[in-house]
Amino acid sequence: MAEIKVGIIMGSQSDWPTMKEAADILDELGVPYEARIVSAHRTPDRLWDYGKTAVDRGLEVIIAGAGGAAHLPGMMASKTRVPVIGVPVQTRALSGVDSLYSILQMPRGYPVATMAIGGAGAKNAGLLAAQMLAMHDPALADRLDAWRAALSASIPEVPSDD
Amino acid sequence: MAEIKVGIIMGSQSDWPTMKEAADILDELGVPYEARIVSAHRTPDRLWDYGKTAVDRGLEVIIAGAGGAAHLPGMMASKTRVPVIGVPVQTRALSGVDSLYSILQMPRGYPVATMAIGGAGAKNAGLLAAQMLAMHDPALADRLDAWRAALSASIPEVPSDD
Amino acid sequence: MAEIKVGIIMGSQSDWPTMKEAADILDELGVPYEARIVSAHRTPDRLWDYGKTAVDRGLEVIIAGAGGAAHLPGMMASKTRVPVIGVPVQTRALSGVDSLYSILQMPRGYPVATMAIGGAGAKNAGLLAAQMLAMHDPALADRLDAWRAALSASIPEVPSDD
Amino acid sequence: MAEIKVGIIMGSQSDWPTMKEAADILDELGVPYEARIVSAHRTPDRLWDYGKTAVDRGLEVIIAGAGGAAHLPGMMASKTRVPVIGVPVQTRALSGVDSLYSILQMPRGYPVATMAIGGAGAKNAGLLAAQMLAMHDPALADRLDAWRAALSASIPEVPSDD
Amino acid sequence: MAEIKVGIIMGSQSDWPTMKEAADILDELGVPYEARIVSAHRTPDRLWDYGKTAVDRGLEVIIAGAGGAAHLPGMMASKTRVPVIGVPVQTRALSGVDSLYSILQMPRGYPVATMAIGGAGAKNAGLLAAQMLAMHDPALADRLDAWRAALSASIPEVPSDD
Amino acid sequence: MAEIKVGIIMGSQSDWPTMKEAADILDELGVPYEARIVSAHRTPDRLWDYGKTAVDRGLEVIIAGAGGAAHLPGMMASKTRVPVIGVPVQTRALSGVDSLYSILQMPRGYPVATMAIGGAGAKNAGLLAAQMLAMHDPALADRLDAWRAALSASIPEVPSDD
Amino acid sequence: MAEIKVGIIMGSQSDWPTMKEAADILDELGVPYEARIVSAHRTPDRLWDYGKTAVDRGLEVIIAGAGGAAHLPGMMASKTRVPVIGVPVQTRALSGVDSLYSILQMPRGYPVATMAIGGAGAKNAGLLAAQMLAMHDPALADRLDAWRAALSASIPEVPSDD
Amino acid sequence: MAEIKVGIIMGSQSDWPTMKEAADILDELGVPYEARIVSAHRTPDRLWDYGKTAVDRGLEVIIAGAGGAAHLPGMMASKTRVPVIGVPVQTRALSGVDSLYSILQMPRGYPVATMAIGGAGAKNAGLLAAQMLAMHDPALADRLDAWRAALSASIPEVPSDD
Repeated sequence: MAEIKVGIIMGSQSDWPTMKEAADILDELGVPYEARIVSAHRTPDRLWDYGKTAVDRGLEVIIAGAGGAAHLPGMMASKTRVPVIGVPVQTRALSGVDSLYSILQMPRGYPVATMAIGGAGAKNAGLLAAQMLAMHDPALADRLDAWRAALSASIPEVPSDD
Repeated sequence: MAEIKVGIIMGSQSDWPTMKEAADILDELGVPYEARIVSAHRTPDRLWDYGKTAVDRGLEVIIAGAGGAAHLPGMMASKTRVPVIGVPVQTRALSGVDSLYSILQMPRGYPVATMAIGGAGAKNAGLLAAQMLAMHDPALADRLDAWRAALSASIPEVPSDD
Repeated sequence: MAEIKVGIIMGSQSDWPTMKEAADILDELGVPYEARIVSAHRTPDRLWDYGKTAVDRGLEVIIAGAGGAAHLPGMMASKTRVPVIGVPVQTRALSGVDSLYSILQMPRGYPVATMAIGGAGAKNAGLLAAQMLAMHDPALADRLDAWRAALSASIPEVPSDD
Repeated sequence: MAEIKVGIIMGSQSDWPTMKEAADILDELGVPYEARIVSAHRTPDRLWDYGKTAVDRGLEVIIAGAGGAAHLPGMMASKTRVPVIGVPVQTRALSGVDSLYSILQMPRGYPVATMAIGGAGAKNAGLLAAQMLAMHDPALADRLDAWRAALSASIPEVPSDD
Repeated sequence: MAEIKVGIIMGSQSDWPTMKEAADILDELGVPYEARIVSAHRTPDRLWDYGKTAVDRGLEVIIAGAGGAAHLPGMMASKTRVPVIGVPVQTRALSGVDSLYSILQMPRGYPVATMAIGGAGAKNAGLLAAQMLAMHDPALADRLDAWRAALSASIPEVPSDD
Repeated sequence: MAEIKVGIIMGSQSDWPTMKEAADILDELGVPYEARIVSAHRTPDRLWDYGKTAVDRGLEVIIAGAGGAAHLPGMMASKTRVPVIGVPVQTRALSGVDSLYSILQMPRGYPVATMAIGGAGAKNAGLLAAQMLAMHDPALADRLDAWRAALSASIPEVPSDD
Repeated sequence: MAEIKVGIIMGSQSDWPTMKEAADILDELGVPYEARIVSAHRTPDRLWDYGKTAVDRGLEVIIAGAGGAAHLPGMMASKTRVPVIGVPVQTRALSGVDSLYSILQMPRGYPVATMAIGGAGAKNAGLLAAQMLAMHDPALADRLDAWRAALSASIPEVPSDD
Repeated sequence: MAEIKVGIIMGSQSDWPTMKEAADILDELGVPYEARIVSAHRTPDRLWDYGKTAVDRGLEVIIAGAGGAAHLPGMMASKTRVPVIGVPVQTRALSGVDSLYSILQMPRGYPVATMAIGGAGAKNAGLLAAQMLAMHDPALADRLDAWRAALSASIPEVPSDD
């Protein structure tokens, strides 16, 4: 069985409809992953353990989605040198700008690779993880190149009223 | 010697000029406190320890200041039921709105008592801590009432051109 | 009958669906409270009386919710040294950012412990009130610890598609 | 001596450099006024008295400037039916957007005639007060018309590099 | 027949559902008014004429509502010294913040008394107009005082779940 | 057959419901145009070719609509000196402010004539294109003048409740 | 003497340091222009005349800069079908976002080709005007192409520490 | 000589003071890199070439900084599957929020790993690049771990007034 190199974590079950876009694209590209709920505030010890064991477990990328005071991506970036991709989940009152600022504005030392707000960001998180892995996985690189080529080829020249 | 009931923590030495306003008003009101640097990202284990021992050490209020992706107040609120007052430190590009959203928008379960951005917020954090302690400390309540009365009395009726 | 130590006030009947989350969590934690409509603009004298009598009536925390030009929390903080927790109610045009700034940006001297915008903020206001009371109420502290432990324990490890 | 029909009030001595623009234009137009510091939070009783006596004292317009959680204009509008003009004073972290939202977003029943942020708003507050009084003061109307005509006439046709 | 002293103008038929709140409260208070569509961009000459004749026609207040690049209130303020009250109509993409800034941020010389965004602002525009007229109309002053007293009296003490 | 002088391009099929307003007004004014999907990110070579051949193909105006990180208008402005009109398409989380800033804030050298967010901006893009062409097309100038006159004439004087 | 086809207008002398960038690039490209102060609020009749005579005077583009409640570009667009390019001048409290929204968010019928905030926008306004004129002026088209080529050629490959 | 695996590109010489923080940390960690000016608008062909040859030249990460309508990172992400890290450079009027939205809000298919605004973001871009390379470079992983440990160890426990 293929080794899991990508961990998708999220602060809450309610983030899953957004984060599923990351899982789906990884499925499509044939990249094994695990999906876990790791709440920075409700399960901080789970966050600690996940971060501390990430390198030893062979994780090469962590995708972390959260909304509001979204501390999960940044706290994970503090606990491991495995690259962390952050997905700001859209929120009700502030449309995800709160999530964005909480994830993006990390201090020197602990980068979080921040994606667009919402589902597009989640899908791109999966793609970025694949791009990172593809650097040392020629077969994945080929699948990714094909996926990108197909995306380009799918664009019609003329807009349709249908 | 009086027991320390207020912990002032901050994410970085650079937050001290702001957070010193909290310390100064506690000095003025005769409330003992400790001031510590506890970085959520650079010293997460220090944060863990501080939070876990807060109740046993007799802390009754924690004032936490941080800027940018300001995770310290919220993570501390996750680790202890001691009330946490958060101070958003002003930042360069986003004026502290990033700090504010990271501190304010906590999910259900882990409140952070958020203050105004910057020095006014830090001073008010000290005052709020004193107001909380005054509920069970009549002498402090008197000093606080006097301080508030003096503030009101200090306001001239007519603005001055000098 | 247990003494009421928490006052929940709001600017309008229309704030009640939001503020009820504060009441519900206090019910759940066994903290007696009263709920009142106190409009800063429509019933300023009611605000005055509420503030002036708060200490003598034994209130130890006031939770104040309001929307738009949300003056109730700050004006209450001016009238009493009982700690005031402010809840910015979400609004139509400005999503509650107007409520937030009106509550948060208090001048030196009169802190308002500001919560997140909307229902999450109201629930956390109730929890913060309980955390403050728990400092001198070991039984409540135990109930609060149990509530927090149950919240943590309720988080599944793996997200569910159902 | 001419009766004072305009009250200029402000939350703090620090608002005077801004609010002085209101006073100066009233001087220029020959409109008697009084200038007072009335802090909503530090001197709430002064605010109460000012509002309650405004009609009987013959005030016909109140200009109120404040910054941050700027409750003065709105609370004054709650206490008297004398028209209140609000001036949002510029602030450090939020540039006066906090002042603006606190003044502008009044609930149904209590209008505040909000001006632009800062000095331009203060000057325009004075002008608006004069426009209101001019409705029943033909001499003032003439002076105002002349002032407006002079302003228009002062605009050169071609920009100058000097 | 009573003389019309209040003109309600708006940039478009689509502003009427908002501006009708101004008309309704004037009806309620017995203040005669006229309602007109005056588009700054589509009917600039109508704007010019309305402004130039306002004083002679006996108008004492103009209420102007507009959305987006809302130039109507400010251009009207440029054409007449009759006090202009501006109502920012809520918009789709920018929620009325575009309307607000276009109305509020007038340069020195031409104040617009800006109200809250949307229907609350429109109702308050009507009330402010009435407050201004009431200064020289004791009967209206009495009706306004009664209206305000009734509003205050209508607020229940305890929120209702119904 | 009339020569095509206006190119309407858009980043995605999903922009067409917005951009169709540009096409419709050009149809109404009798201005021939072509509509094409040219994605800056998915079909960058198509963008390159479109830009490089624009002058030779006789295009006199390019209308480019895009949403989010809306790079199409600005990249097109980099590739050709044919004037580019940009339409920020409204987006879900950020309401089109992301589209707006990506289109508007071009560096010195490469202007994009930015329109309002959404459908109004698209219609105005078509009108601006017609205004530019009308400078050297008297018949079109007449049609445009008539269209503008009809728009002005269509505004009723009194708002209707129907 | 060359016919003037570009009018640069601005709301105030204080806009000239910004708008001079438009004049300078037109000078550099050999495009004759006139520069005038036309205040929407202080000299509305001048605005009216400028707009009404624009076509007859042979103007082919109008560049209009203004700050705050920036009504000049949009009102000019209402008065003439000559294309109007708008430059939002940076402001003190709101950084030019007020100017931007007032210029950009025009209703259907009256486009303003909005540029970036500040000096870069003014320079690009001049360039866009030249691009529009170049459509029917081959010599200008050549000068513009050369200017663009020189700009591209001026970019070094490696950043310099000097 | 060590192979260059990191390309630092920026839109303008004026971005170098910001982007130099990325270069400096790579120097400190012993990661070879190249620094180039690649303007999306002024040198689009350079961008094309850089993107097309990136994989073949052995680049494993590209760090791209830009300000305003910051198209460089996203356009590079369109041209190569090498992971692109984007750094929003702070701007004058909009503080880098324009840069941020232009970089962050990429559509599905083309992720840009967005960092914080300004110098902290540039430094973190270098660190993230190193974290990505360290996945397959144990010696670099050790140096990175040591750098992170040293950062943590450098934080004093008590804030200093000096």
